[in-house]
Amino acid sequence: MADISTMDTLWVLLGAALIFFMQAGFAMVETGFTRAKNAGNIIMKNLMDFACGSVVYWLLGFGLMFGSGNGFIGIIDLFCQGDYSSNIPSWAMIAFNTMFCATAATIVSGAMAERTKFSSYLIYSVVISAVIYPIEGHWIWGGGWLSTLSIGGSSGFIDYAGSTAVHMVGGVSAFIGAAMLGPRIGKYGRDGKAKAIPGHSITLGALGVFILWFGWFGFNPASSYGLSTTEKALEVGNVFMTTNIAAAAATVVTMIVTWIRYKKPDVSMTLNGSLAGLVAITAGCSAVDPWAAAVIGALAGAIVVFAVEFIDKVLKVDDPVGAVSVHGVCGAFGTLMIGFFAREDGLFTTGEWGRLAVQAVGVVSVMAWTAVTMGLVFFIIKKTNGLRVTAEEEIGGLDPVEHGLETAYAGFQMKNEQ
Amino acid sequence: MADISTMDTLWVLLGAALIFFMQAGFAMVETGFTRAKNAGNIIMKNLMDFACGSVVYWLLGFGLMFGSGNGFIGIIDLFCQGDYSSNIPSWAMIAFNTMFCATAATIVSGAMAERTKFSSYLIYSVVISAVIYPIEGHWIWGGGWLSTLSIGGSSGFIDYAGSTAVHMVGGVSAFIGAAMLGPRIGKYGRDGKAKAIPGHSITLGALGVFILWFGWFGFNPASSYGLSTTEKALEVGNVFMTTNIAAAAATVVTMIVTWIRYKKPDVSMTLNGSLAGLVAITAGCSAVDPWAAAVIGALAGAIVVFAVEFIDKVLKVDDPVGAVSVHGVCGAFGTLMIGFFAREDGLFTTGEWGRLAVQAVGVVSVMAWTAVTMGLVFFIIKKTNGLRVTAEEEIGGLDPVEHGLETAYAGFQMKNEQ
Amino acid sequence: MADISTMDTLWVLLGAALIFFMQAGFAMVETGFTRAKNAGNIIMKNLMDFACGSVVYWLLGFGLMFGSGNGFIGIIDLFCQGDYSSNIPSWAMIAFNTMFCATAATIVSGAMAERTKFSSYLIYSVVISAVIYPIEGHWIWGGGWLSTLSIGGSSGFIDYAGSTAVHMVGGVSAFIGAAMLGPRIGKYGRDGKAKAIPGHSITLGALGVFILWFGWFGFNPASSYGLSTTEKALEVGNVFMTTNIAAAAATVVTMIVTWIRYKKPDVSMTLNGSLAGLVAITAGCSAVDPWAAAVIGALAGAIVVFAVEFIDKVLKVDDPVGAVSVHGVCGAFGTLMIGFFAREDGLFTTGEWGRLAVQAVGVVSVMAWTAVTMGLVFFIIKKTNGLRVTAEEEIGGLDPVEHGLETAYAGFQMKNEQ
Repeated sequence: MADISTMDTLWVLLGAALIFFMQAGFAMVETGFTRAKNAGNIIMKNLMDFACGSVVYWLLGFGLMFGSGNGFIGIIDLFCQGDYSSNIPSWAMIAFNTMFCATAATIVSGAMAERTKFSSYLIYSVVISAVIYPIEGHWIWGGGWLSTLSIGGSSGFIDYAGSTAVHMVGGVSAFIGAAMLGPRIGKYGRDGKAKAIPGHSITLGALGVFILWFGWFGFNPASSYGLSTTEKALEVGNVFMTTNIAAAAATVVTMIVTWIRYKKPDVSMTLNGSLAGLVAITAGCSAVDPWAAAVIGALAGAIVVFAVEFIDKVLKVDDPVGAVSVHGVCGAFGTLMIGFFAREDGLFTTGEWGRLAVQAVGVVSVMAWTAVTMGLVFFIIKKTNGLRVTAEEEIGGLDPVEHGLETAYAGFQMKNEQ
Repeated sequence: MADISTMDTLWVLLGAALIFFMQAGFAMVETGFTRAKNAGNIIMKNLMDFACGSVVYWLLGFGLMFGSGNGFIGIIDLFCQGDYSSNIPSWAMIAFNTMFCATAATIVSGAMAERTKFSSYLIYSVVISAVIYPIEGHWIWGGGWLSTLSIGGSSGFIDYAGSTAVHMVGGVSAFIGAAMLGPRIGKYGRDGKAKAIPGHSITLGALGVFILWFGWFGFNPASSYGLSTTEKALEVGNVFMTTNIAAAAATVVTMIVTWIRYKKPDVSMTLNGSLAGLVAITAGCSAVDPWAAAVIGALAGAIVVFAVEFIDKVLKVDDPVGAVSVHGVCGAFGTLMIGFFAREDGLFTTGEWGRLAVQAVGVVSVMAWTAVTMGLVFFIIKKTNGLRVTAEEEIGGLDPVEHGLETAYAGFQMKNEQ
Repeated sequence: MADISTMDTLWVLLGAALIFFMQAGFAMVETGFTRAKNAGNIIMKNLMDFACGSVVYWLLGFGLMFGSGNGFIGIIDLFCQGDYSSNIPSWAMIAFNTMFCATAATIVSGAMAERTKFSSYLIYSVVISAVIYPIEGHWIWGGGWLSTLSIGGSSGFIDYAGSTAVHMVGGVSAFIGAAMLGPRIGKYGRDGKAKAIPGHSITLGALGVFILWFGWFGFNPASSYGLSTTEKALEVGNVFMTTNIAAAAATVVTMIVTWIRYKKPDVSMTLNGSLAGLVAITAGCSAVDPWAAAVIGALAGAIVVFAVEFIDKVLKVDDPVGAVSVHGVCGAFGTLMIGFFAREDGLFTTGEWGRLAVQAVGVVSVMAWTAVTMGLVFFIIKKTNGLRVTAEEEIGGLDPVEHGLETAYAGFQMKNEQ
């Protein structure tokens, strides 16, 4: 107790508040980029995954993640009765990590938007928050096997704020969920060609991206867990700069790529480009220098465009907001890039290969864990409660069917085809 | 002067900024949950109660609240010429408390939405900010009689961040204002049955709730007035956790209750459930443990549903956004719950009854103060300037009549019945 | 290195995050106050000026601004390889100043809205961020000639957080850009009379203003560059209070002025009034007392109304969101007011005239710099790439033409005339 730093506590709690606010960002992005008839439902999913997630992470998840336990899993500590204080108080530690858990959970709602049964979404969000996220989180951040993995002189999987632990896990879950659900009615024509289903408010979607970018200044910098020494101040300064420059570089590159490929700079794809850069730098924001962050961001900004196309047109998995590409693909990509650009042991910077190997093992194992467990979860839900609403319900909109909400926009004249 | 803590100053000022941002939350909630034809008016009321409130609280209110004075009232210190520095500078203290004052004032605008004369709303907001809030605030936070009240070994009314001082006062004022105004045209059918008048943007309403939840991480934690000792760090960690878990538990319970009662999980009521939990834990966020916070939040999440129904259907007071239930009922409820769950002297925790008595005296006396004074204020306004617009103006919308704004949504085709 | 303050680093970085969030505010204000058919374009301009600005300010701008250099300009330090650490780390300094640079750049997009070629806007934003802002910034904040200017006993141009360095520069650039572009089609009738072109969402515009006000609590207070001494705590407390009270006073006065002039309290003008107060106090927030801040804010709240009318009706320059009046006029005004109200050397407070002279020299020279260089930039763009879209494109909307976005609001029925 005597070692609690008031400075670190303040820093982590303000970070937690900023990360909470990212929930508003996700809600706006996902609502804005989908149709008006499902707006209330998407809001509700975003609200409830946070609320349910907060409760079950406190109930079970946190103990599984940060309890001493073994290399694979922590302990069952119902309602966090143990003492988890370090340089910050126990409850600050728990609250901060609740926000990360909720971020992982909420990524999925966008990919499964406009056709998922609300009750099934609730079940999913409880399971990921209580068990699946905490276990891989234990591997990475809770003293588990990835945190001590050592290959070729490089030791400890690096994932500063969760490109893998949070975003890739959300993105992989989103992919499995969207694939099991099948595409929205009308997404693929008789000829099998993907059609764009435009969102109902680019403005709100953009607001969501700005909110997320803002919240990321808590997500990444506050993952320092402290700011009470000169070393930490230098670390955090670097993290803030790499976070911003990666996002900026990604945004510029995505705009250029869409301008070349589609003849015009695409608004919603460029907004996704900003997120791609943020996701990609999240793992390495402290381990790399700003120039490397700009490179990583720029690459992510290009990758996200092709990933969206590939998932949409080749894999034919319908991901209404591009969550799989942004969080899954760029999360994995960014984590691996540390192997090339890490200041201390990157292939391009120091010529060492151990870091890359550690990062690859981490990404692959967490990807496998998530794919297997979430595959099972969605499979069981599908076979029991059912994953998807009926075709009539989908066409009529989830708002009236699932929530008794005639429309989220009373008073506005909507087009018939909606 | 020498005792000013830079850490505490930083903490309080960032808290003040977050609390300010709650104004945006209130504006979005109230606008989103009411009709498009009054959107500009509601925005304007939210903006002006903050602006007018800031000026008159500085002019008069702060001195009445924090000036030494006596047990009932502080002093008249026009424009805060005195020195109110403690561990934080005088101006930081004044700015921080300005934000609380403005929160109390703005709660009322939702309940009185869509039919109140703009000029009358301005008069109300000046009076509550300059006099009515400061006086009861003096009782609780300014060294007044409630702050020293002692019954059965428990001493000092506990209202950490204002379940009573801010929210209940706003909610009671809202009730009186809405009751004196009468319901909106069309709210009650010929048969006397309440009809729902749906809001024009559930999305913006939800954004408002997310913003409020975010801002509450300033509202409650920064009410510690400091974070420069280990004790304060532990206190603030607890406050952050109780705030979040109460809100989460409330959200879950409200969803379940609406699912059972209305057959479907209701979006806007569940959003109100989040606010109900936040309001209820605001008084006791430091005095109770997280488990108790979850219980208090869960109960508030149920209570808000029945309170809304009771006020709407039995009392037939038309509160368009549910402000009376959320802030008034849950504010009083949460303050009383400290009597049961306080770590140190709660009826359920230590078996003592003094705390509950102190809390009850505080709630009842502040409720009486607010009801009497605000009743008088609204009565005088009604008899002089008039509280309500004409029926024609109400039907046509307050935007054109009160502000010369043809529509807040130029370019959108609106339905005729709006 | 040894002198880095963790406290100051935290303060500055949280300030940087808040200032970043102002980008969301600008995006919402500018989108909300213009037409739906250009919403995607405006979002894109706001996003890209930040993204491009972040990259080029890092590449070139920061070195020109803060590199030692001479009185007129810093140095060319590509990608900030030098050490700029002081009481905060180098990267924190760079990131913080990136946010200021982006604010100056983004002001222009509102004034040039609804008719500017997207590619030309990108060119503009690169040039202002890389060269034009950094050079005048060097004069004021980078150790340049204005920072050491001494007249009549008063020394050093005072512009605490950039009424001149950021806002007036943005406002003057906006004026030149809007004037060179010419008015939107339909803005001036055959009789030459200005017609109002209403924005498509007053609600989002208002949200933007609330976000800006919130972000300003980073913009001004964090410009202290620290909060680790009692002196700094007192300074920051004063800054927070003056910022809020100036904005509040301005809001109240603008409302009253519009009520008198237009018979009704105008919503969007009053929202601009809040911004006018914030802009005006930004230079002097530390140098003046709260009472003077209220006076400065109140005057700015009146001035903005007449400035908007003058630019719209007399100069006939079409500024869709009033950016020139808010940022340009009130920025210059607020900077000059320090000459009258400065606590230590103001004409009204101590009877000295040196301060006013220094402030006037600063305002005039920065205004001249901006007018000449930006005039040249826009002239060259106009003669090469072209500044304006064609009439057909303008009527059809920039979203489809520039971005291939059929509409930002799919599903909503829009009016034909839009």
